[in-house]
Amino acid sequence: MTRLSVDGERLLQRLQALGETGVSPSGKLTRLAASDEDRLGRDAFAAWAHAAGLDVRVDRIGNMFAVWETETNRSQDPILMGSHIDTVIDAGRFDGCYGVLAGLSVIEALKVAGVRTGCPIAVAAFTNEEGVRYAPDMMGSLVFVGGLDVVEALNAVGTDGTLLGAELARIGYLGEGEPGSWRPQAYLELHIEQGPVLETERTPIGAVGDIQGLWWAKVVIDGTANHAGTTPMGHRRDAGVCAARIVTFLHERASRTDSELVATVGCIDVEPNAINVIPGKVTLTVDLRSPSAHRLAEEERVLRKFLDTLSTAGFGISTTQLARTEPTRFDQDLVEIVAEAALERGLKSRRMVSGAGHDAQMLARICPTAMIFVPSVNGISHNPLESTNPDDLIAGANVLLDVVTRLARE
Amino acid sequence: MTRLSVDGERLLQRLQALGETGVSPSGKLTRLAASDEDRLGRDAFAAWAHAAGLDVRVDRIGNMFAVWETETNRSQDPILMGSHIDTVIDAGRFDGCYGVLAGLSVIEALKVAGVRTGCPIAVAAFTNEEGVRYAPDMMGSLVFVGGLDVVEALNAVGTDGTLLGAELARIGYLGEGEPGSWRPQAYLELHIEQGPVLETERTPIGAVGDIQGLWWAKVVIDGTANHAGTTPMGHRRDAGVCAARIVTFLHERASRTDSELVATVGCIDVEPNAINVIPGKVTLTVDLRSPSAHRLAEEERVLRKFLDTLSTAGFGISTTQLARTEPTRFDQDLVEIVAEAALERGLKSRRMVSGAGHDAQMLARICPTAMIFVPSVNGISHNPLESTNPDDLIAGANVLLDVVTRLARE
Repeated sequence: MTRLSVDGERLLQRLQALGETGVSPSGKLTRLAASDEDRLGRDAFAAWAHAAGLDVRVDRIGNMFAVWETETNRSQDPILMGSHIDTVIDAGRFDGCYGVLAGLSVIEALKVAGVRTGCPIAVAAFTNEEGVRYAPDMMGSLVFVGGLDVVEALNAVGTDGTLLGAELARIGYLGEGEPGSWRPQAYLELHIEQGPVLETERTPIGAVGDIQGLWWAKVVIDGTANHAGTTPMGHRRDAGVCAARIVTFLHERASRTDSELVATVGCIDVEPNAINVIPGKVTLTVDLRSPSAHRLAEEERVLRKFLDTLSTAGFGISTTQLARTEPTRFDQDLVEIVAEAALERGLKSRRMVSGAGHDAQMLARICPTAMIFVPSVNGISHNPLESTNPDDLIAGANVLLDVVTRLARE
Repeated sequence: MTRLSVDGERLLQRLQALGETGVSPSGKLTRLAASDEDRLGRDAFAAWAHAAGLDVRVDRIGNMFAVWETETNRSQDPILMGSHIDTVIDAGRFDGCYGVLAGLSVIEALKVAGVRTGCPIAVAAFTNEEGVRYAPDMMGSLVFVGGLDVVEALNAVGTDGTLLGAELARIGYLGEGEPGSWRPQAYLELHIEQGPVLETERTPIGAVGDIQGLWWAKVVIDGTANHAGTTPMGHRRDAGVCAARIVTFLHERASRTDSELVATVGCIDVEPNAINVIPGKVTLTVDLRSPSAHRLAEEERVLRKFLDTLSTAGFGISTTQLARTEPTRFDQDLVEIVAEAALERGLKSRRMVSGAGHDAQMLARICPTAMIFVPSVNGISHNPLESTNPDDLIAGANVLLDVVTRLARE
């Protein structure tokens, strides 16, 4: 058989066009969930899907599904691709949009080639993946898999005081489909890596086998603020020094293990923060991630024990858990198919772990799921500088096409 | 001879009264240099000095001198005691005021006892020691010793846009005496420790032999901000980790030496300071102090070398010196006299170094100078909680009295 390919030029043009949809007069791309800008993005996706002859369905949480089905295969569970088209504030143009538009390209390629699939093929744009305007993030996919009641989600109050349900109705995307009333037979999400690994290793395809679990905590250290000149070293309870020990401990522990543990102290706030006053109080945040639930729990335990030793040394230390998500293990057979598809295209690939959350981790609860990553230039994301080389964008879409073709024919 | 003593009750009452002078309706004591509140404090001091039969003189920078002299001794250089009565914002009542009012008590005790001294005895209240409203701090004493031109000082622009000279004239304390037209034969400054050493060691008297030199610097660390979940540990340039290394390095180096070096990182500012973003930039401050100029220079050199190694490891590091003051060595004979005077009163004393700056470091440029410290409860100063036990306050004043008596008789 002749190998199919997506229409790469059209994919790139649509990414460009969608990236210019919702741009503010100051040039920033901000398409928050259920905003006027989100409507413009949704309208563009729906128009392209309709032009491709697809049926566009919207469910009660606003998830959009562009569906290609025939009389003969509509009784089967569909193969679903997808991601999201809402963005963060001052976003890049690839996060989410790439997975949705590449999915559309895949269906178009199959249709144009006259491929007959054993099941419907669909592409989803899930509502409010970013969670910037309404919490929680990955909301649309969470509702879809039954992890959050749709009414509760629609009553989410935004950072601007609005209700999500009212805003979805206002922009015309409060649909009637019941989330979760059908189940995909598989879910595939193509996404930019948002990290440096693929670019650094000159590897165009990541076969994503896991999404890391995450533990976020706030640690408050109480020492004693005192005069920097008159307080001898032996008399100090310097909360800044205590904080530095925690930062170093976490970094060194994560760096010396060969697992995929990452540890970050992103926020450090010092009081009184004056040049000649010993820090009396420091508030810092801890972000621990690992694809292993066991490892994550172990690292949390080790950190807590370390904090106990600092307490024993005289510091007041309190720890508040801010978030915890368990790691997601994707369907390893499907991940292997992704790797094989890359190999058949002559594309180098690697197994990898996603450090960020994606709709795929929700879908993995109800069906075999995998993700495909393509390189991010300089590992940058959530930023206007977000960039992926056109060849990599097209290669990723073709791997997705090959995987879907294989699944749909079997 | 019978040992003289100051009138302790009166000293305590005056400290109480001066501490209530300039208190705002919200209960905060703030007597900034040349403010209306400063005028009230100066008026109180002048009134007590006049009541004691002393001559009150004001020089062109507003320094006040309460002078006790006789026909027979006025040709001699006076022995000067003193400190300041301006305060920081929301101040305690002992910093500065104690040295001024104790000096007044000493003269009163000598007068009442009919002691005939070989030279005039005076007590100074120097202008703008704190430097909160006008820079630099220790301004009045600096001008007095010839380290700053009086016209330049009077033209200092305050944080509120006022000119010091205009404000001194407005409150009636722009005098006519030429700063530095006379020279004390010795200067003694009694002060609260503003640190924990005397209290911790249950030692009522500190014979202060040195004031530490100081080096202040701002260090800016440039790393790379990146996603906390998707950036492997080996790919990171975490400016927060780099900052933690500097904090730890300084603390451990100062802690393990047996010299009186102290090192403090008081300010730490992280960018972007987000829980899930690796710190891309950290700005921190370094405060190094030592009584040894050699040691201070050595520690600065060692720190710069350490920063160089961090630069080599890939961080962008820039260092800006914010301040440098050389250590002050007091007159060691005079310091010994302080220790002897304590011993003769049956008071335990220790040699010590001042970590904070005082007018005495200016006076040390032109005459034999020493300081006497008394304990600060919990080491607290520049704070309404500033406190020294009444017995310690009186004991310190009596040691000052004994030292002055000995110098004036010799």
